[in-house]
Amino acid sequence: MSHSEDDPARPSGAFQSADVDELAERPPAGSEGPTGIVLMNLGGPVDQNSVQPFLLQLFADREIIKLPLQKWLGPFIARRRTGAVQENYRQIGGGSPILEWTRKQGEGMCERLDRIRPESAPHRFYVAFRYAPPFSEDALQAMHEDGVRRAVAFTQYPQFSCSTTGSSLNELWRAAGRTDLRSAFDWSVIDRWHVHPGFIAAMTETVRAGLAKFGDADREDALLVFSAHSLPLSVVDRGDAYIQECAASVEAVMQALGHSNEYLLSWQSEVGPVRWMGPSTETVIHELGRKKRRNVLVVPIAFTSDHIETLHELDIEYGELAKEVGIENYHRAPAMNDSRLFLDAMADIVARHLDSGEPCTRQYGLRCPGCVNPQCRNILNPVAPYRRTRVGARED
Amino acid sequence: MSHSEDDPARPSGAFQSADVDELAERPPAGSEGPTGIVLMNLGGPVDQNSVQPFLLQLFADREIIKLPLQKWLGPFIARRRTGAVQENYRQIGGGSPILEWTRKQGEGMCERLDRIRPESAPHRFYVAFRYAPPFSEDALQAMHEDGVRRAVAFTQYPQFSCSTTGSSLNELWRAAGRTDLRSAFDWSVIDRWHVHPGFIAAMTETVRAGLAKFGDADREDALLVFSAHSLPLSVVDRGDAYIQECAASVEAVMQALGHSNEYLLSWQSEVGPVRWMGPSTETVIHELGRKKRRNVLVVPIAFTSDHIETLHELDIEYGELAKEVGIENYHRAPAMNDSRLFLDAMADIVARHLDSGEPCTRQYGLRCPGCVNPQCRNILNPVAPYRRTRVGARED
Repeated sequence: MSHSEDDPARPSGAFQSADVDELAERPPAGSEGPTGIVLMNLGGPVDQNSVQPFLLQLFADREIIKLPLQKWLGPFIARRRTGAVQENYRQIGGGSPILEWTRKQGEGMCERLDRIRPESAPHRFYVAFRYAPPFSEDALQAMHEDGVRRAVAFTQYPQFSCSTTGSSLNELWRAAGRTDLRSAFDWSVIDRWHVHPGFIAAMTETVRAGLAKFGDADREDALLVFSAHSLPLSVVDRGDAYIQECAASVEAVMQALGHSNEYLLSWQSEVGPVRWMGPSTETVIHELGRKKRRNVLVVPIAFTSDHIETLHELDIEYGELAKEVGIENYHRAPAMNDSRLFLDAMADIVARHLDSGEPCTRQYGLRCPGCVNPQCRNILNPVAPYRRTRVGARED
Repeated sequence: MSHSEDDPARPSGAFQSADVDELAERPPAGSEGPTGIVLMNLGGPVDQNSVQPFLLQLFADREIIKLPLQKWLGPFIARRRTGAVQENYRQIGGGSPILEWTRKQGEGMCERLDRIRPESAPHRFYVAFRYAPPFSEDALQAMHEDGVRRAVAFTQYPQFSCSTTGSSLNELWRAAGRTDLRSAFDWSVIDRWHVHPGFIAAMTETVRAGLAKFGDADREDALLVFSAHSLPLSVVDRGDAYIQECAASVEAVMQALGHSNEYLLSWQSEVGPVRWMGPSTETVIHELGRKKRRNVLVVPIAFTSDHIETLHELDIEYGELAKEVGIENYHRAPAMNDSRLFLDAMADIVARHLDSGEPCTRQYGLRCPGCVNPQCRNILNPVAPYRRTRVGARED
């Protein structure tokens, strides 16, 4: 059974590999498959009309944004920002390509997994976005209809944060409740892969591709500005692991590059009045210009594919800023998108995870010391014994 | 010529290996030695009377602490804090052991270097503390009297920060001016070694030794709290590399441990009214207790030897706090001090550095984007061509 994105009954449905033929649909002899792999990410509006619903979802997520009178203020802010955000999406071609990339990634991953791990074939991917269709419900329902029992929640954020992967997982479990599928699947979770060798190889390749955009005389002088979405310091201060895991990714890439260039790590996309992790990428570009740095390569280290924050913020906004402040050669490393190395990495991450038999990394069980969200770090029907968050073991 | 610490003419002098005999003093045939290795660290008061001079130096360092009316307010704060700090040192035996450990480390390092790198023997170490004797002047003068030409400034802070290594190096070059030794040495700099394999092996050994303090039933449950001295966010926001380098050290240790335990990274010793990098170690211990965590191992990740922040802050202050909040088993991983693995690491770091022929890491040349200190990132008489801080290349 195949779910087309054009199927009106499943406008926001989940998607599976297009080139799976009927034969491959049946598990090979001795296989424990099918195996469902839920690709979790933030998502983005596919067109202009989807911008406001996307913002409404985003500003309603209290695991990311806590506002006073959220039910009233969230929609108010979302509506007020719609016009400006629509304009940003217009400038990158009308909508976010994140769904298209995620599908290509899922297809490449499943094709590889069927080859390298026949014992769990066929592998099928289901997209679960947090703020845009297809939502967690869609993924769960499609997976259920496909007769999947063994399910892997695979975050598409390489580094763990409660604001990203944490929020997506909590929503996945809530959606299972809402769809009455609480006991439909045996779950395990791939909760982080910030220094997985395949991921680092794929990231390193994008940096090399970025460096290739510079002239020979400028390449060695290019400063690598690794940029990741920032976090409010209130989240950092709770003990969120994201900052340190981003730093570890950067270190691994620099080692793979043999420290060929100077580099730094900065943080982008902060909004609102609270204090965020710094230095901000925007400020850094300002300062680099003032200090007459001529060659800058920005490297998105915490996203796997192109979306508004690479195509608009890094390319257009900071590109204009770089020109204004006199940076002569400002380039961005390409996103991994459907690069061969990244698809290899995705398949290897899942294969190693399935081989381990573990329900998650050991680290997933650790709730942040300052955590105030009782829902955090759960796994629904874990495939193997799992005791969450020893930090809060007796509190629960 | 040997400099004893008891020599009244050199009360704050530099020190060299005690077991270097007269023969070893002459460079072996074909050697480029002697090679002087300046071990740079913050230092600490050796006795109660040295506490106030130490604090006066500390609060006068505008590269660490910027106060309004510093010349007046610095001494005022230093005098006001003297009593409390004296009491802390009294509780750890009267004074800081940092000089003693640094000497043992220097001796072990030189003895190894003479063996593994005869071409630059004899190797001699000189201690240059930032806030307590022996100062940079002492190291420079002793090195000059010993006939050293080739000098290596070797920071004892594994991770680079402008507040630590940066301040020490700037002071070293200023001291060379004050002592009229600006052209006496050919310098290179070991400016960071946060993921050097030997350092990671030595750190990992200390974590294992710390875990051995737990009973068999509790060991796997022990949460590793890696703790490093915090930084004011104003320094982080300038683009200081310290936070990300500490995180990279932690990641490397956890990989070496095979992720045997849950872990987090927190930041200690913040003072004053400005906002510092969090989460603070103290807050984390509080929260872990409230959440009924029973087993905690704190691991000092940014210091090489015992001093007030391990012996008093981690052991005594946070030890009492841990008891108060109900953490049943609270232990600290031992400092590396004179562990065999760490002495091996020190020698290997210097040997690789000398082999490279480089004046410093590539990264040392990069001034922070937000740097406002024109003195930063210099090397006096570099042993090989060095162009500092391409960020500020045209500004200088």
